[in-house]
Amino acid sequence: MTSMNALVMRGGAVHLETVDIPEPGPGQVLVKSLACGICGSDLHITRHFDEVFSFYRELGIMDPGLDDSAGVMLGHEYCAEIVRYGPDTTARLAPGTRVTAVPVLDTLGGAGIGVTPGLAGALAEYFLVDEQHLLEVPGDLPAVAVALTEPLAVGLHAVNRSPIRPGDVALVAGCGAIGLSVIAALARRGIGDIVASDPAPGNRERALGFGAALAVDPREQDEVGLAAERAGEGRVVIFECVGQHRLIDDFIRRAPPRAALVITGIHTADATINHAHATVKELDISYSYYYNPQEFAECLTALGDGGIPWQSMVSGTVGMDGAAGAFELLSGPSDHVKVVVEPWRSGPLQRVVPE
Amino acid sequence: MTSMNALVMRGGAVHLETVDIPEPGPGQVLVKSLACGICGSDLHITRHFDEVFSFYRELGIMDPGLDDSAGVMLGHEYCAEIVRYGPDTTARLAPGTRVTAVPVLDTLGGAGIGVTPGLAGALAEYFLVDEQHLLEVPGDLPAVAVALTEPLAVGLHAVNRSPIRPGDVALVAGCGAIGLSVIAALARRGIGDIVASDPAPGNRERALGFGAALAVDPREQDEVGLAAERAGEGRVVIFECVGQHRLIDDFIRRAPPRAALVITGIHTADATINHAHATVKELDISYSYYYNPQEFAECLTALGDGGIPWQSMVSGTVGMDGAAGAFELLSGPSDHVKVVVEPWRSGPLQRVVPE
Repeated sequence: MTSMNALVMRGGAVHLETVDIPEPGPGQVLVKSLACGICGSDLHITRHFDEVFSFYRELGIMDPGLDDSAGVMLGHEYCAEIVRYGPDTTARLAPGTRVTAVPVLDTLGGAGIGVTPGLAGALAEYFLVDEQHLLEVPGDLPAVAVALTEPLAVGLHAVNRSPIRPGDVALVAGCGAIGLSVIAALARRGIGDIVASDPAPGNRERALGFGAALAVDPREQDEVGLAAERAGEGRVVIFECVGQHRLIDDFIRRAPPRAALVITGIHTADATINHAHATVKELDISYSYYYNPQEFAECLTALGDGGIPWQSMVSGTVGMDGAAGAFELLSGPSDHVKVVVEPWRSGPLQRVVPE
Repeated sequence: MTSMNALVMRGGAVHLETVDIPEPGPGQVLVKSLACGICGSDLHITRHFDEVFSFYRELGIMDPGLDDSAGVMLGHEYCAEIVRYGPDTTARLAPGTRVTAVPVLDTLGGAGIGVTPGLAGALAEYFLVDEQHLLEVPGDLPAVAVALTEPLAVGLHAVNRSPIRPGDVALVAGCGAIGLSVIAALARRGIGDIVASDPAPGNRERALGFGAALAVDPREQDEVGLAAERAGEGRVVIFECVGQHRLIDDFIRRAPPRAALVITGIHTADATINHAHATVKELDISYSYYYNPQEFAECLTALGDGGIPWQSMVSGTVGMDGAAGAFELLSGPSDHVKVVVEPWRSGPLQRVVPE
């Protein structure tokens, strides 16, 4: 067997294509994808390919010769199973062991798994990871839960990037996968007063399950004013987890004095901002993008310890033949939080209902 | 004697007018202005009165009924001499004692001295301060030096608002009074690697005297790249002390990864920003506006201890009859850093040459 199914982004949509199974190089391991989440960034990059890739070219972090025709094999939130080791590895974990890892190949100059043209992503049957990054899955934690390690690490990093301290009030705006991950990290940090804000009732309910003290509909309540009122002399830390850049200026205008704003997600279009509002209130704005291997490992451990109600975060699972349809569905309004693809099987998108 | 000279902002310019000498109320002290600096914000508010005041109204921090016709008596960077105490004071310092204080009347609901319509500023012969804020001038420190306490406190606060630590590289963009004050605070903090950037040779020279390791012309050298190179694995902290909001987006685009940006000055016009550049580099942006009484007192002490080469910061002095002309001159390009008005005397603007 030398070929496999892979989800390839090309021409503004994803397609199921047949590609070669990659060969592990020095320090690398071939793994079989057991579960891989569809990330908001996968949807964004698919719809706004030109904007995103021209931004990456502007930053000089992308080969200027590459374009959409090369195709990008997506998938970076995964649980996998060890298949075969390449040269210069220690093979410390037996084939068949379930693993996850940060989606970066340091053996390939730090190339990102699931975003690099020509490189297999975790939305393929098989892909390559660095042996040095492998983390063994704790106990019998299901593969769909392990696939949440990555978004949970994004949330934890956003909290670690923030100046929040006990006694402050956190306002988490947007309770999709990233917002829930932020809430999970805040709750583990012992932040008791978390105000969650989301127009979708399902997201608000999940936010409460993850540890929010209350969850409001921002169309009906002034969520910023509410957080400020609860903070009193304390500080409000706003986590922007909606991914709409217009909201940033809106929060700058509405934030109370001394508030901090943490921006998750990437906003490649130019935006308008009024710095004076930030100045007279002496705001702090932090941008959060990555996470580090320690944060990633911490989230896997927290999942294994049962401290995160991940069951409510997985809203659907789908086989490989249904994945392209799921992308299309998720590009529009939906009440899904996280859809996880199981690349080893076929089958349509199915709603997961927590017990 | 019941009337005095005061510099009043009205109709987009400042005018020397005759007004009543104010009467100290409970907790207040009447002081005689010995020296008062002309601040960049005085010039800005004079030229952009409508924009600034409508912004203050939008923030709800200004009486909506007030307009330009009320006139604003300017002046908030001062050295003064105690004349007479009002009721409910302890009179702990004798009349004639030289003092300075934060330019805020807590006895008048926190009204700012030099920015509040109807209230005498320090660019008048006499004005009111709160007894509780009075700080005695140390030793024989000249009044023109004492008048620098306020801008020095603005600089110190910007440094205290920043995440800078030993080993980081500071880039101070703009070496006018605020930039020099930032450099002074960084040097006192023990930050050894300070890169100063200013198109004016005189400002660059002063920056070196204040403690910058090197001073570059940003039209000829990539000051951001230079700071990044010197930082190596350390962090670059950029202090924006130019007061042009277009520079903020420019620094966001040019900053190295993990850099911090501290914005001093107030930019009331809407600006364009690309958040994605800040996101992929995980920048931190802090806005600095005020200072606290401790920071103010610390700067007065530092001046008294001789640790700040304030002589090079005062570029000119002027009597009360020359002050309006000085405002006009400073509204255009000039090589002045800080012009100090001596409201008790007359005389034209004279260049101060450090010995």
